[in-house]
Amino acid sequence: MRHLLGIDGLSEQDITSLLDEAERYFGPHDPIATRNVLRGKTVLNVFFESSTRTRTSFELAGKRLGADVINIAASSSSVTKGETLLDTVKNVEAMQSDAIVLRHSASGAPHFIARHTGASIVNAGDGSHEHPTQALLDAFTIRKRLGKLAGLTVVVCGDILHSRVARSNALLLGTFGTEVRLCGPRTMMPREPNVLGPTVRVFDRFDDAIEGADVVMMLRIQNERLGGTMMSTTREYSRTFGLNPRRLRLAKPGALVMHPGPINRGVELDNAVADGTQSVILDQVEAGVAVRCAVLARVLS
Amino acid sequence: MRHLLGIDGLSEQDITSLLDEAERYFGPHDPIATRNVLRGKTVLNVFFESSTRTRTSFELAGKRLGADVINIAASSSSVTKGETLLDTVKNVEAMQSDAIVLRHSASGAPHFIARHTGASIVNAGDGSHEHPTQALLDAFTIRKRLGKLAGLTVVVCGDILHSRVARSNALLLGTFGTEVRLCGPRTMMPREPNVLGPTVRVFDRFDDAIEGADVVMMLRIQNERLGGTMMSTTREYSRTFGLNPRRLRLAKPGALVMHPGPINRGVELDNAVADGTQSVILDQVEAGVAVRCAVLARVLS
Amino acid sequence: MRHLLGIDGLSEQDITSLLDEAERYFGPHDPIATRNVLRGKTVLNVFFESSTRTRTSFELAGKRLGADVINIAASSSSVTKGETLLDTVKNVEAMQSDAIVLRHSASGAPHFIARHTGASIVNAGDGSHEHPTQALLDAFTIRKRLGKLAGLTVVVCGDILHSRVARSNALLLGTFGTEVRLCGPRTMMPREPNVLGPTVRVFDRFDDAIEGADVVMMLRIQNERLGGTMMSTTREYSRTFGLNPRRLRLAKPGALVMHPGPINRGVELDNAVADGTQSVILDQVEAGVAVRCAVLARVLS
Repeated sequence: MRHLLGIDGLSEQDITSLLDEAERYFGPHDPIATRNVLRGKTVLNVFFESSTRTRTSFELAGKRLGADVINIAASSSSVTKGETLLDTVKNVEAMQSDAIVLRHSASGAPHFIARHTGASIVNAGDGSHEHPTQALLDAFTIRKRLGKLAGLTVVVCGDILHSRVARSNALLLGTFGTEVRLCGPRTMMPREPNVLGPTVRVFDRFDDAIEGADVVMMLRIQNERLGGTMMSTTREYSRTFGLNPRRLRLAKPGALVMHPGPINRGVELDNAVADGTQSVILDQVEAGVAVRCAVLARVLS
Repeated sequence: MRHLLGIDGLSEQDITSLLDEAERYFGPHDPIATRNVLRGKTVLNVFFESSTRTRTSFELAGKRLGADVINIAASSSSVTKGETLLDTVKNVEAMQSDAIVLRHSASGAPHFIARHTGASIVNAGDGSHEHPTQALLDAFTIRKRLGKLAGLTVVVCGDILHSRVARSNALLLGTFGTEVRLCGPRTMMPREPNVLGPTVRVFDRFDDAIEGADVVMMLRIQNERLGGTMMSTTREYSRTFGLNPRRLRLAKPGALVMHPGPINRGVELDNAVADGTQSVILDQVEAGVAVRCAVLARVLS
Repeated sequence: MRHLLGIDGLSEQDITSLLDEAERYFGPHDPIATRNVLRGKTVLNVFFESSTRTRTSFELAGKRLGADVINIAASSSSVTKGETLLDTVKNVEAMQSDAIVLRHSASGAPHFIARHTGASIVNAGDGSHEHPTQALLDAFTIRKRLGKLAGLTVVVCGDILHSRVARSNALLLGTFGTEVRLCGPRTMMPREPNVLGPTVRVFDRFDDAIEGADVVMMLRIQNERLGGTMMSTTREYSRTFGLNPRRLRLAKPGALVMHPGPINRGVELDNAVADGTQSVILDQVEAGVAVRCAVLARVLS
């Protein structure tokens, strides 16, 4: 695997193998030994959209493997001087970077770049298209807690249409035959959900979607997109599509509560649920570093 | 010592022991050996207020001990997306950071965080409350130059009321029984200086305060706060509370001139004094890295 | 060599020796061995003007040699609090930085600083004065491709007057007796080009300058400066001073096309030329890291 551009195109075996490798970097492990994995390699984090969370996670992963990690934020970079994406990446590559972790607002940007570079490209989120390491860390967390991915029912609730997190997760889970239930305001649902896989079903009402679910993934709602949903307030959104203790009781006992962060507390997620015993939100964050270690090690091996 | 939240609560022995450990990292020492002290550890600098000086000092300290150091600036972080302080820190902790160096505008923020995290918290300045590593580096510099802390007279002049530097210094010096003389515009003096310790005395006139002093610590004056002092210009402030060669001659011969930086030249400090032979301002900066090495090594050992 | 302040003052032998050292860090080499060259040393990138490209290149160079590298961007630093350049650099030095890589908008800033510091200063661009590592990486690239510097003809085209790149290149190439032809809008030409060396000639028309040239260096044109040239549009600039395939055919067959980046595609450089077989623009970027490794190793040895 030279690049990680998306979940699309990965087989069940590819994914399982990445998750297995991530186990090596999860929890207590010899920090000195891991620093030899990528010693002498260079990883560049090229972020055209800011994301402290994802950037920090990749930076930690690269450093834990002993790589040199350099951050390039678009706002301070040559793009503000009108340089094209390709020129920027070509330059970064010419500085002998072995891997380029790329976040960009344009769907497909990493794929375009991968066709024109000798470096390994890791997609850290492209537009509303894919966010493969997020889906991998979610899968890692589910597998860790529930022991498997196949045979489960996972609800994803929120702005599905614009969410690369939802898309990558649906694709990944579909690969394992996991049932994926999508739910959210009608204007935020994909027109053709079947494209995401044969196991995807769409629900209008959250109460119907959540019934008997093993996992409930909540998405961050963007205030600026709320206007298009005919819901005038976050309070109304919260009542219709927010996860609260009452609603969570409709899911399977002990169902996992997930969120890619940062949380809009009181909007898509009640405090009682976000901080409750079923929440694995911080496990997701921890899994993120391990999964990104596995991805970097894999594409650079 | 798992955290360093403030000088408050540290004993004379705690402080002496930290200063002694800082000696190991001060001046010429084997740079290769120190890089093994925290090898494999992760330090996150989480700065909700910008401070190149303090952040750089902590970054250098962490790197000199061989730790991976990651910087997170609040402006670019999830806090702008409305995430709470606690969520941000919980996330940082979940990424397996061993120590979190925290600067925040709210007094008590590090203490609040320390109660909710497994990571070691180092206070890099919280509101107008404490800045313990600044007080430690000041004490290190005084001890280095004058051989002791007890039995000295230290003047602190400026906006005492809002200064975490003044507060931490008064607390630290009081622990050693050092006489602390506070002086500045009346509106900038604490209402109950005794809270800072039994050795604290308040002076209206700088000329009275400085007489016979061993050390003169000048604080940076914030232009925007000058309005409240009834002094309309920096020139007037300078004449009343600025340190110039004439005034310095009232102190003990060879008295040390200190400033936490950055200096407002010509306002609280004359150029002739800032760059004069009695100034130890750059010694303070150098001591800062050594003291922060000692603090990180201690909380992570 | 304790500092690298400019090309001015360097002998042919100094330059050749630096270029020879850069060969050690160019292309495939043992990444583990190079990490011992500056282990335990600290390099601070202090950039008062933003430049992702140059900063990243120095950061990579420092890290490849095993140094700790710390970035300080002026916008976030104490300079916004009114601190002077000298105070900032004195502080950085007091933190025990071995080398300070300085970019500043004032011509001569690094020279001023070098007189007041014990650290090694590397000029990463000062106003419209010098950009020595750019000239060195350009020379490295030419020597690599054409085997020599002496006896060649190099055209530099664009805003010569304000370009530190043009100035450092003219000085360097002049040292080797290389013929340097400067060309650009009349208002952008230096009044006394002879100051740049006896081998410098000025041309009004690009077609005349380029005839028989071995190397064509194009400079980035700043839109905001175009007004002063009496050329109202970038299209007009492009027609008069842009490099296109037709014009390139006037140069020697196989002449090198160079650009310090970032490129204004379609203005000073046609896409067909920028991406053509004669373009060595990405070789320049690659050479940049190697040359900066050599410079840092030299000033710190």
